[in-house]
Amino acid sequence: MKTAKRRSHKSGLAPGTLVHIGEQKTEKMLITHIEYDETSYEMRELEVLRECLPYKDKPSVTWLNIEGLHDVSAIEEMSSCYGLHPLTMEDILNTEQRPKVELFENYIFFVIKMISYDTQNRKLIMEQVSLILCGNTVITFQEKGGDVFDPVRKRLKNNKGLIRKSGADFLAYALLDAVVDEYFGILEKIGDDIEEVEELLLVKPSTDTLRQIHTLKREIISLRKSVWPLRDIISKLEHDATEMISANTRLYLRDLYDHTIQVIDGVETFRDMISGMLDIYLSSVSNRMNEVMKVLTIFASIFIPLTFIAGLYGMNFNTGKSPFNMPELNWYFGYPFALGLMVATAAALLLYFRRKKWF
Amino acid sequence: MKTAKRRSHKSGLAPGTLVHIGEQKTEKMLITHIEYDETSYEMRELEVLRECLPYKDKPSVTWLNIEGLHDVSAIEEMSSCYGLHPLTMEDILNTEQRPKVELFENYIFFVIKMISYDTQNRKLIMEQVSLILCGNTVITFQEKGGDVFDPVRKRLKNNKGLIRKSGADFLAYALLDAVVDEYFGILEKIGDDIEEVEELLLVKPSTDTLRQIHTLKREIISLRKSVWPLRDIISKLEHDATEMISANTRLYLRDLYDHTIQVIDGVETFRDMISGMLDIYLSSVSNRMNEVMKVLTIFASIFIPLTFIAGLYGMNFNTGKSPFNMPELNWYFGYPFALGLMVATAAALLLYFRRKKWF
Amino acid sequence: MKTAKRRSHKSGLAPGTLVHIGEQKTEKMLITHIEYDETSYEMRELEVLRECLPYKDKPSVTWLNIEGLHDVSAIEEMSSCYGLHPLTMEDILNTEQRPKVELFENYIFFVIKMISYDTQNRKLIMEQVSLILCGNTVITFQEKGGDVFDPVRKRLKNNKGLIRKSGADFLAYALLDAVVDEYFGILEKIGDDIEEVEELLLVKPSTDTLRQIHTLKREIISLRKSVWPLRDIISKLEHDATEMISANTRLYLRDLYDHTIQVIDGVETFRDMISGMLDIYLSSVSNRMNEVMKVLTIFASIFIPLTFIAGLYGMNFNTGKSPFNMPELNWYFGYPFALGLMVATAAALLLYFRRKKWF
Amino acid sequence: MKTAKRRSHKSGLAPGTLVHIGEQKTEKMLITHIEYDETSYEMRELEVLRECLPYKDKPSVTWLNIEGLHDVSAIEEMSSCYGLHPLTMEDILNTEQRPKVELFENYIFFVIKMISYDTQNRKLIMEQVSLILCGNTVITFQEKGGDVFDPVRKRLKNNKGLIRKSGADFLAYALLDAVVDEYFGILEKIGDDIEEVEELLLVKPSTDTLRQIHTLKREIISLRKSVWPLRDIISKLEHDATEMISANTRLYLRDLYDHTIQVIDGVETFRDMISGMLDIYLSSVSNRMNEVMKVLTIFASIFIPLTFIAGLYGMNFNTGKSPFNMPELNWYFGYPFALGLMVATAAALLLYFRRKKWF
Amino acid sequence: MKTAKRRSHKSGLAPGTLVHIGEQKTEKMLITHIEYDETSYEMRELEVLRECLPYKDKPSVTWLNIEGLHDVSAIEEMSSCYGLHPLTMEDILNTEQRPKVELFENYIFFVIKMISYDTQNRKLIMEQVSLILCGNTVITFQEKGGDVFDPVRKRLKNNKGLIRKSGADFLAYALLDAVVDEYFGILEKIGDDIEEVEELLLVKPSTDTLRQIHTLKREIISLRKSVWPLRDIISKLEHDATEMISANTRLYLRDLYDHTIQVIDGVETFRDMISGMLDIYLSSVSNRMNEVMKVLTIFASIFIPLTFIAGLYGMNFNTGKSPFNMPELNWYFGYPFALGLMVATAAALLLYFRRKKWF
Repeated sequence: MKTAKRRSHKSGLAPGTLVHIGEQKTEKMLITHIEYDETSYEMRELEVLRECLPYKDKPSVTWLNIEGLHDVSAIEEMSSCYGLHPLTMEDILNTEQRPKVELFENYIFFVIKMISYDTQNRKLIMEQVSLILCGNTVITFQEKGGDVFDPVRKRLKNNKGLIRKSGADFLAYALLDAVVDEYFGILEKIGDDIEEVEELLLVKPSTDTLRQIHTLKREIISLRKSVWPLRDIISKLEHDATEMISANTRLYLRDLYDHTIQVIDGVETFRDMISGMLDIYLSSVSNRMNEVMKVLTIFASIFIPLTFIAGLYGMNFNTGKSPFNMPELNWYFGYPFALGLMVATAAALLLYFRRKKWF
Repeated sequence: MKTAKRRSHKSGLAPGTLVHIGEQKTEKMLITHIEYDETSYEMRELEVLRECLPYKDKPSVTWLNIEGLHDVSAIEEMSSCYGLHPLTMEDILNTEQRPKVELFENYIFFVIKMISYDTQNRKLIMEQVSLILCGNTVITFQEKGGDVFDPVRKRLKNNKGLIRKSGADFLAYALLDAVVDEYFGILEKIGDDIEEVEELLLVKPSTDTLRQIHTLKREIISLRKSVWPLRDIISKLEHDATEMISANTRLYLRDLYDHTIQVIDGVETFRDMISGMLDIYLSSVSNRMNEVMKVLTIFASIFIPLTFIAGLYGMNFNTGKSPFNMPELNWYFGYPFALGLMVATAAALLLYFRRKKWF
Repeated sequence: MKTAKRRSHKSGLAPGTLVHIGEQKTEKMLITHIEYDETSYEMRELEVLRECLPYKDKPSVTWLNIEGLHDVSAIEEMSSCYGLHPLTMEDILNTEQRPKVELFENYIFFVIKMISYDTQNRKLIMEQVSLILCGNTVITFQEKGGDVFDPVRKRLKNNKGLIRKSGADFLAYALLDAVVDEYFGILEKIGDDIEEVEELLLVKPSTDTLRQIHTLKREIISLRKSVWPLRDIISKLEHDATEMISANTRLYLRDLYDHTIQVIDGVETFRDMISGMLDIYLSSVSNRMNEVMKVLTIFASIFIPLTFIAGLYGMNFNTGKSPFNMPELNWYFGYPFALGLMVATAAALLLYFRRKKWF
Repeated sequence: MKTAKRRSHKSGLAPGTLVHIGEQKTEKMLITHIEYDETSYEMRELEVLRECLPYKDKPSVTWLNIEGLHDVSAIEEMSSCYGLHPLTMEDILNTEQRPKVELFENYIFFVIKMISYDTQNRKLIMEQVSLILCGNTVITFQEKGGDVFDPVRKRLKNNKGLIRKSGADFLAYALLDAVVDEYFGILEKIGDDIEEVEELLLVKPSTDTLRQIHTLKREIISLRKSVWPLRDIISKLEHDATEMISANTRLYLRDLYDHTIQVIDGVETFRDMISGMLDIYLSSVSNRMNEVMKVLTIFASIFIPLTFIAGLYGMNFNTGKSPFNMPELNWYFGYPFALGLMVATAAALLLYFRRKKWF
Repeated sequence: MKTAKRRSHKSGLAPGTLVHIGEQKTEKMLITHIEYDETSYEMRELEVLRECLPYKDKPSVTWLNIEGLHDVSAIEEMSSCYGLHPLTMEDILNTEQRPKVELFENYIFFVIKMISYDTQNRKLIMEQVSLILCGNTVITFQEKGGDVFDPVRKRLKNNKGLIRKSGADFLAYALLDAVVDEYFGILEKIGDDIEEVEELLLVKPSTDTLRQIHTLKREIISLRKSVWPLRDIISKLEHDATEMISANTRLYLRDLYDHTIQVIDGVETFRDMISGMLDIYLSSVSNRMNEVMKVLTIFASIFIPLTFIAGLYGMNFNTGKSPFNMPELNWYFGYPFALGLMVATAAALLLYFRRKKWF
């Protein structure tokens, strides 16, 4: 819903007009500049974006990470510096994009969704990450600082794995990989929630359980919306962007593609399980109604006949005037007889319901 | 439904016969003629369509906007002037078209749906817009005047963005873009309604809520019918109309395509949410029935046994004649005993229902 | 169902054996022969099919319309005359075909379904029309005479539109167009029925309404079965039959294709609406049950306690023997007290149910 | 289920090992050998398969029909004689194949399902037929003798239609056609059953009806599993097996393809109808519950208040001691008043329920 | 769920890092080395993986089976020896892969799922098998030892079928075939369970039955997840891996493909049946509620009127004071009349319910 709400503020502006759409999630824009090759590694925080320009044509790989998107003019500056299309800049600033990849002549641009779980408010938080791969430079734009990219930074610093030996395309892959790895954690969290709700369903289903099921359903829907396009993105990177992505990195992308399919598989399985939970919930509601009805029926069916018998002998026919008028009332064992009749009736009915396996 | 109803009036006529199908939504046909290039901009209202002919072969871009479709002969005149196919003219006049694009040898023709929200009658209003891109001329046909195209007019006037620097194909794109931007507003409005109905569902679901859910469902269906074909239209424009649409405009069309996908995503999410709301509604009906049943069962199960006890001691066995006949009635504490028996019975039953967590 | 039933009579015969499958819907076979070119127009009724042979090689367009299919030998004669394949003849005589198009070397054959609404029996009537386009001759086979083709005949006679100026392919198109136009009328009729049933649903849903919903559903299913294949037929005509269909007619076929899509859209929308109506029906059944339960619960929950109180003071404890035995019965205001207790109980319960918003 | 059960007996054997999987449905293996060309026709029963070898290279068409599959060695013999692949032989012996076609270098092999209706046990019987088209020889394998191929034999004998004039490919087509013709009969039978159950649904739905609906559903599912692959088989024969199938036979295959589509259409329509029947059944269950509830509510709501009134005047307040204590009991018209009160109450309630249209 | 849970432990590591993900299912890693050609067969257990290296370039076929995946360094050793890509090694160690095939320049790698049924805990056990076909060597990795491959070993030893005469590609096929054969057994087991639950459904449906239905549904879902990808794997092997797989083996793969389709067919049929069982369960719950309601209604509707009559004659109108006040009480046959009235009422009601076919 937010998508529509905020997006409509922009309606009427010329396409390509740079406006930041979305919440401002961080106070100050933070620019981290990492430069590395197989032997050297340097990381600095920049005050102004333009400080990074001199590094543009160096042979080493440059990673420029920008956190916070509200300083529109600074970002616009970059546009002209790296020769980005105005529409790309517009997409970066609009944080309600759908995940997508776009191949331009001199760069690849893609938008993905980073998902984290806010344990305090118990809900998923989605953050947009834009990534530009342009020659030997990777530029990433985040709405606010996060620690998803930290493992990549560490591997860069400690020169672990292939990352320092490979080009900017491998760095782009590694960042994508870090995001997809996060999805597994989210899946795990949702899986735990599903198990919890399933146990609740068996023990004590309530309207609250129904609400939890629907919350889970929504989380799955929003996860789905982030993951499905990812599949196309990676497939497109692997098959169409042959010039900018090396054969080796493509092998890794194929692996990442498999991981994405795995996440999608998990999401779809959860969808199936949640719809099964709805079935169980609804049939448990029916079962409980059945229970209630049985209790009512047993009580009513036993006591109404008894009350009738009691009422019978409460009638005021003048017994003295005619031998036909309620001779039972005058019997010596009249009362025990009536009580016995009642007990027999109750026992017969109890037996009847027992036979029907109602209790 | 309207589609069928009105459409059938035409059945039996030769294809290509020009008849205006649909309501007449404006009194007078209004023709606005805008001519511009990078340096100049001129806007006039024409009395007669033929006034625009002299501009036809000028190098500047011409935008001819026609509001009101009932003057069939005037529109027919244009047909011959711009070399339009009779079927195109027929489609323009039939306001119950499905959104579509058609590529002719010398022009591109497409039909789209403009959607606005009538706040007074609380319903969606759909208006058909036909657009012809023919050389450096764009001709738009609207059923009645609206303000969706106003932002484009303003940008033309104030020379904002690329629009004055680009050709007629960019103008066509800008108009399409304006329509799609409107859809975001409609989505937002429907999103608000959904949230409202969802709250109602939790607080006090009624048959009225059900009706609202179905109204929302219908709005989503009709929005869907307008948006899905749009996707194919833009894709076709981007990929097939290579001669009439420049490479630069195609980049913008790709962007527009993404927006359309975003609208479709929103529509589909809403569909999911609405079907979830139906589930909740139905299970809330069941739950309420459960509640009602519980109240009945508790009342009946407690008071029927009590009434039985009261009935028991209301029997008229002649107590004097036999020591077995209801000695309780003669006990000193008979009545308190009976009352106690009742209270104990009621307490036991209350405890029983408490145990079952029925209240 | 009929399809299967009648079709099986033929099982075991050699393929290509000519047998008329289906009801005989008209008494006499009627052959109308129309010959025209841009300047001349001639229409005659033939006694025998072979009378049309001399016109076969004329340059003017010939339209042969045959109503009634039971005279198998006459139709067989035509087969040899126009060089039709035995399977084509078999398909023409089997009136339970699925709509389809078949391209032969020297002719195009297609089968479509004409649908009309029988206002007396309130049901859809389906009639099969076979059409052969063979050089400059069009041959149509109808089960019985209808007026669907009348507008085409009029246009031919009055030389309206392109029809007299164009070839046999355009005539074939015009006839197809006439059939599709009929579908709009049927859609309109079903749309009216749906609206009617929807109002019934809101006012007084009954099992009868359910039956009407299912009748509508069936009509939609059978309409669907006729319309969906039509789409493929027209698409195939437009794209594959390039030799026999001129470029101009192809433009018109594209238009017809759009109309077919529009009918399909309508059919699908109706399907959605009908399934929505089922939802409403089912939830209205639940709601009514809820209502019934509430009435029962209110009555029972109010009067059972009152009856208990009455029963209480109907007990026969000997009041004289002990001050504890029902002193109320001897109070001066005992009866008003009991009545007051009853009124208070009833009022409290009414208030309770009022609070629960049960009435 | 059977598929899995029996199939697993074979697990662990080398692929290509010949084992007969399935029931032995006939006692003796029966080999019929038919040889024909346009002028001659000869039919013999063979004792041993090898008797047919001399005919192998004759120009006339040979049809070898084998009934009973348990004599594995005899069938193995044929394998070497006609140069069949071991996997083909394995597929022939495994009677739980899915319908399929396989093109080998020198022959075409396909498996189809013959369905017949066992009127005694009221269930569908499925029999597997394997067919090999190898040069001018057609070999068919049946589990047991049936009369589905009888019409083809008669046509061969009586030289009806094209069959004697055409090659082995046409014979293969004719046999396929005979099987598909059988499907129409099965469809008809299921259609009759559906109509029967539908009437039951309207008159007196019971759990038994539900069971019948599910039996129908299963029959449709199993029919579906036989028919859907058939479509691919015929399409593959028509388009891929260009060397072994003549152009003329291909025309007939196209026709057969249409018949298959017709059967599929019927099957899908029945699926829709059956799911509609489930809807009706479920809502009829709800309706009956509604009925029951109404009866209960009317009885309880009318008689409980009356019983209360009766209970009221059954209270034992000492009327003599106070003028307030139940003066009604002493009124001259007390009893008629009470009776009147009761009648009035009952009438009011009846009117109330009448207003609610409960009866 | 497990997939996500364990998978997330790895998040943050460099891609290609070798970590064993999954339970350690066996204590010691077991390496079996089989070498064979048409004439010779040798099988040994290796202590160290490197012992197998000398056999690498021999012309005979080598099958290396490794059970247990926890000895990461040993497996890494193999990586370098056979020139495997790090990602392949990573996939082998991660036992929560989705079934897939990957073609590398010098080898084919695929992952499949072996499924067995644990009769003690009554649940499916899934084990991952990775297979590498590299020249004339096949390497298989299992989580723990199993007997699924035993039949293949026996055939190798006893030189049965084609296996010893064919290359490593046929061995790979034979192993795949063994796994698919296992699936038939699992299908059979699930089929038996379904039949059992179906009988329970008809005899005595309970919430326990519902739980069993859902267990079955889950098993089917997990089987589905293993089987569907298998289809793509085999299809890819058959069509893309033309260099490493011989034409003859491809024929066998086509056969295996058919088996896989058969398993998929079975799985989908079971899905349909299980959803049908849910329908029956839910409607049986409704039916039972109906039953309960009928019992209640019959008891209440018969005895409440009787109680009313009894209550009527329990009223205390002073009969002496007025001839209108309850003269029945003084009639000679008053009591028999009242009893008769009751019996008549009860009989009439019983008749009424009998008419309604309630019992």
